[in-house]
Amino acid sequence: MTERRAYLDHAATSPMPEEVIAAYAEALRAVGNPASMHGDGQRASELLETARDRIAAALGADRAEVTLTSGGTESVNLAIKGMFWARRRAGSGDVILVADGEHHATIEAAEWLRDAQRATLAAIPIDGEGRIRPDALRAVIERIGAERIALATFLWANNEVGSVQPAAELCGIAASFGIPSHVDAVSALGQLPVDFAGSGAAALSVSAHKIGGPVGVGALVLGRHSTADSLIHGGSQQRARSGTQDVAGAVAFAAALDRQLGSGAGPDPDPLLVATLQGLRDALVDGVRAAVPEAVLRGPADPASRLPGNAHFTFPGCQGDSLLFLLDAAGISASVGSACQAGVAETSHVLLAMGVPEEEAAGALRFTLGIDTEPREIAALIDALPAAVARARAAGLA
Amino acid sequence: MTERRAYLDHAATSPMPEEVIAAYAEALRAVGNPASMHGDGQRASELLETARDRIAAALGADRAEVTLTSGGTESVNLAIKGMFWARRRAGSGDVILVADGEHHATIEAAEWLRDAQRATLAAIPIDGEGRIRPDALRAVIERIGAERIALATFLWANNEVGSVQPAAELCGIAASFGIPSHVDAVSALGQLPVDFAGSGAAALSVSAHKIGGPVGVGALVLGRHSTADSLIHGGSQQRARSGTQDVAGAVAFAAALDRQLGSGAGPDPDPLLVATLQGLRDALVDGVRAAVPEAVLRGPADPASRLPGNAHFTFPGCQGDSLLFLLDAAGISASVGSACQAGVAETSHVLLAMGVPEEEAAGALRFTLGIDTEPREIAALIDALPAAVARARAAGLA
Repeated sequence: MTERRAYLDHAATSPMPEEVIAAYAEALRAVGNPASMHGDGQRASELLETARDRIAAALGADRAEVTLTSGGTESVNLAIKGMFWARRRAGSGDVILVADGEHHATIEAAEWLRDAQRATLAAIPIDGEGRIRPDALRAVIERIGAERIALATFLWANNEVGSVQPAAELCGIAASFGIPSHVDAVSALGQLPVDFAGSGAAALSVSAHKIGGPVGVGALVLGRHSTADSLIHGGSQQRARSGTQDVAGAVAFAAALDRQLGSGAGPDPDPLLVATLQGLRDALVDGVRAAVPEAVLRGPADPASRLPGNAHFTFPGCQGDSLLFLLDAAGISASVGSACQAGVAETSHVLLAMGVPEEEAAGALRFTLGIDTEPREIAALIDALPAAVARARAAGLA
Repeated sequence: MTERRAYLDHAATSPMPEEVIAAYAEALRAVGNPASMHGDGQRASELLETARDRIAAALGADRAEVTLTSGGTESVNLAIKGMFWARRRAGSGDVILVADGEHHATIEAAEWLRDAQRATLAAIPIDGEGRIRPDALRAVIERIGAERIALATFLWANNEVGSVQPAAELCGIAASFGIPSHVDAVSALGQLPVDFAGSGAAALSVSAHKIGGPVGVGALVLGRHSTADSLIHGGSQQRARSGTQDVAGAVAFAAALDRQLGSGAGPDPDPLLVATLQGLRDALVDGVRAAVPEAVLRGPADPASRLPGNAHFTFPGCQGDSLLFLLDAAGISASVGSACQAGVAETSHVLLAMGVPEEEAAGALRFTLGIDTEPREIAALIDALPAAVARARAAGLA
């Protein structure tokens, strides 16, 4: 069932290392609800809070700022909706600034607020490399008027094309106008130093399963001076979320961070890991270009401005989903874009927002690497790619 | 770390059996996001949908009606908030009928809708045994006017005092007025036949960790003709919820149901399990009464009207939390009420709604049993109880 092929889709979900599974299974054997007052509950609470400390340190946050959630999508929804409700009640305007090319969690949450809660949405544009230019953010704020804006939200790094945003600079600009920022750091975690305190963000979302932790576990960091209405109310087990706390999930998230960030105490990922990822990624990019010279690398041209584990191409004359299925048949898992769209293949809104023409965007394929990616997986892709491209192109001409 | 004491707090969270942990760990080794189009993703999707089928069958629901969530609290919030938004947009009134003595997830979700979304709340009273009388529901609807009511919500069985509600009769009355019902079946699952189709409910919430499944996994059953706005928007992976689906969590939930419900295909729990639970529970009740004759059993006098695994007493002259700590020191885990209140000991709103005077309600202690409770655990309680009650009473007099 778990036979391993060439898995180049870590951004969809990253396999759990055995040591994370072992830590998880051990924590699952702990008895008791951490909200219970008896000894079993208190021991569960100690496990939970030790894990929360580890997670907070990895994010450059204070433990009191970390609310554990069921994952990145919940965190993003909690941040955007919760901050919108709290800010509007406190007298802010009703405009939410949403960067172009965001993850669907952000887009759909914002559109629901517009359709059901009378929010107004305004776009922050991205450039041809998928990046938000600081002057573009400033121009949007000045055009709309800061007093009308409830919050701004953007990705720390784009989940499709890998563009790293100048997060601290963007948060600083928004803050200079009194506007709180939410940063979706799901794809950045483990590959970039995601330092909440250093970023100046009001809120920050992360997920465990993109770095080898369990699906169903994530966190929202909410700054101590920021407020957000809860999405999930109840027994007030956490500052911004109710519900029985998932002790084992938190322990497994902490174990995945240990493995991804190494022994460092702070948010910096293990430099050796990052260098390894970048090396493999650069080999993949060079190999794809050698095998299919007409392939176009999308996202930042400068490798230093791209997520270390991300490569994204369009293949002229091909449909991305045809290529995906042909590579799949050759034992290689890749993605046409975000996996977070219920298996629907449609032209990437990220590429379109970058100004890529629709017919070129249709030939997109994303390759994402993780901590346990092996050179043989890259080699398998390079071997299989020319024939797959040729067949996909022939299918497109048929 | 996991040394087992006398654990009589299964309603707070029920320990995971080794076979459920084993099924969980095996599923954690599966690679791939079920929304991915490649073979890894499709295999993950098959695992997920097989588990969803098992969960649906256990709930008397169709698979298309089952949305997996992060637990009971999320399910309850999704049902109440989501149905309120959808019904109000479709032109319903703004009144939510909330039974007295509900779980805090329901109370806090409803109060947020009142405070932030202009809902109006109205109570359905409970009687001295914690039960909703059908004529009381009918009277509330007739007094308010059905056209003003968006939905009704109540527990299938009370999580503190164990009162089993006439769920189908209550849903039928509401439906006869055109009012959809949400039923919180978290504490009923595994002990009573929770048959969604047979209940006539519009929505039903359950959780995995109260029956030996993992924390962080639950489900909302939403009838095919009912609609609810999502709480968590994004890639539309499920009908009423977005976010990467937790394949391993669903597999573990299904494994816990297998163990709790036996090999039966439908919602009926294993009769032998229920008889065993009732036998242990009755032994606990008889033992407590023999050891502390002045203890008052709360909730239904008729054992058949009480959850098989629940016993709830007040101990005159004692503070429940003093008793809890004294029993804890003797190696016994119990609860003053719901564990879902962030470790705060306050007088039970359930007992107060039943008309129990505050000074009597302060002496409450709940004992809840599970599938792996052993007679020695009951015996340990009966042994330790008289001395604990004597000390708690002395502390109260001091």
